[in-house]
Amino acid sequence: MARIAVTFAPTALPPDARDRLLQGLAGHDVSFADDGDWSNLQPTSSPHTHAADVIYGQPAVDDLQRTDARFVQLTSAGYGRYDADALRQRGIALCTSSSVYAQPVAESALAMLLGALRRLPHTLADQPHARWNAAAHRRASSLLHGARVAVLGWGAIAQALAPALVAVGARPVVVRRTVRGDEPLPTVPRDRWHEALHGAEALVNTLPGTDDTEGLVDADALAQLAPGAVVVNVGRGTTIDTEALLDALRRDHLGGAWLDVTDPEPLPPGHALWTTDRVWISPHVAGGWRGEHLALVEHFLANVGRWQADEPLLDRRA
Amino acid sequence: MARIAVTFAPTALPPDARDRLLQGLAGHDVSFADDGDWSNLQPTSSPHTHAADVIYGQPAVDDLQRTDARFVQLTSAGYGRYDADALRQRGIALCTSSSVYAQPVAESALAMLLGALRRLPHTLADQPHARWNAAAHRRASSLLHGARVAVLGWGAIAQALAPALVAVGARPVVVRRTVRGDEPLPTVPRDRWHEALHGAEALVNTLPGTDDTEGLVDADALAQLAPGAVVVNVGRGTTIDTEALLDALRRDHLGGAWLDVTDPEPLPPGHALWTTDRVWISPHVAGGWRGEHLALVEHFLANVGRWQADEPLLDRRA
Repeated sequence: MARIAVTFAPTALPPDARDRLLQGLAGHDVSFADDGDWSNLQPTSSPHTHAADVIYGQPAVDDLQRTDARFVQLTSAGYGRYDADALRQRGIALCTSSSVYAQPVAESALAMLLGALRRLPHTLADQPHARWNAAAHRRASSLLHGARVAVLGWGAIAQALAPALVAVGARPVVVRRTVRGDEPLPTVPRDRWHEALHGAEALVNTLPGTDDTEGLVDADALAQLAPGAVVVNVGRGTTIDTEALLDALRRDHLGGAWLDVTDPEPLPPGHALWTTDRVWISPHVAGGWRGEHLALVEHFLANVGRWQADEPLLDRRA
Repeated sequence: MARIAVTFAPTALPPDARDRLLQGLAGHDVSFADDGDWSNLQPTSSPHTHAADVIYGQPAVDDLQRTDARFVQLTSAGYGRYDADALRQRGIALCTSSSVYAQPVAESALAMLLGALRRLPHTLADQPHARWNAAAHRRASSLLHGARVAVLGWGAIAQALAPALVAVGARPVVVRRTVRGDEPLPTVPRDRWHEALHGAEALVNTLPGTDDTEGLVDADALAQLAPGAVVVNVGRGTTIDTEALLDALRRDHLGGAWLDVTDPEPLPPGHALWTTDRVWISPHVAGGWRGEHLALVEHFLANVGRWQADEPLLDRRA
């Protein structure tokens, strides 16, 4: 029997996910927080975390400094607010839920990439005006087939996206910090990443938010892309230099930018990203779907089983 | 040397496609029409068609009744306005350009399908209001992975779409007039097609407009789909009963309908399809892209070469 501290209230979960969580943790000593919104992934302080063996949710950073827990399971893909090195040194396992989000994010990235190339936002914008601008849209649209697509990152999202890109006939080039040689696609290392960008008709960022990705996609990087290229960001908003992106759009160097993540988030009313032509905003929803909560619970329960059996944990980061 | 009648003016083509056409037909006796808009695919009467060996474009139906031509190459995928049986009896080969359009249409269908499931139109509609409705959109969105997708038709479009559906992890079921047993996906014959629809989370229509597809997707067919299902039409507008579609949307049985083709076309201002909630209109552009005209010319030139060498013609319909 493990002491399991959950950093949100059971009411934060839809009934199917809550029932599955309680059933799956039967026999354990489970304590929930009184509140704690699951959706916005804000860290929640909870007194139960101190004496817990396992913490599930989004614990407050300070709580982790005091905990006796051996295993922390986050409900997010990102873990940038936690000090993974410090947890590792204290022998505390830290796991994300990134594999749960990989497929939905990859599908949204593909939807945005194809949508931008096939001009779906442009024709949707014509709809309130009942404009049937067939010839103009046909002339201006592009194909993913044959298109050079720079994919930043080779984590779970990129690996879920890659088969679809290949199936459609795109020519993806992956940028990975270190090339290991086992990648199924052409891959360049980070220190030569402009080779992947040069002449690319699309850029898909899947990189997480870390110190060395902040502002990575800057004016010089965007200038490498082919004129009219589209940018899709499903990684972190901070990875793209927003001002450089807006400038490249205003100068018509870029054909469009579809952003599921922005810097800052939520994007405040009046921000230029809301209103600049050919910027399409999606409010950090690419990882979600109607089965999200149940899948997160299943992922946690699988890791609890692995932790108890001393087997390798899924999505372990520390 | 063949006499080749083109039913549009050379100025109707972008320079790269025009240059390639003239270069590819050098040595032949080529006559162009004085006008004739390439884009809207309206048939054009031309006196040159009478004594031509080859007709290229969208000839007037009456002109084909008087022509001596042996080979008619249409620039469209559809050929419903021509009497293929009559042409066949007179020994006149009729070819479409359907294989040119298959990839772009498949890409648009995938973009619309993924876009509807991942709620891209919903988040785009929030953008002018600077609404960051993350939780609501996450809860309501769906995945293509694991989704049952009924694909109507097994022509070039469906065959171009299928690998991408499989790569994303969808579960497509194809409806084909006659099942031949060589299909790479689960396939049901037209007389049992409701089996493919039953419980499907998406319907993608790729069928051409023929007598036996008119109104095929009626209220009974739509009722078979799972609640919240999305409908994508890249075939012909007449294949879907518009009133039944609107009714299913208004009753919230359907989650949305993305239509590249409508009945009628162009969709007149004030038509309910322009304004009904969760109908997304694309003005018959799915087959287009910036390389469309050049690709059509290449396809024609390839068929001219085959015709001269007495080899099987591409996309032959009569």
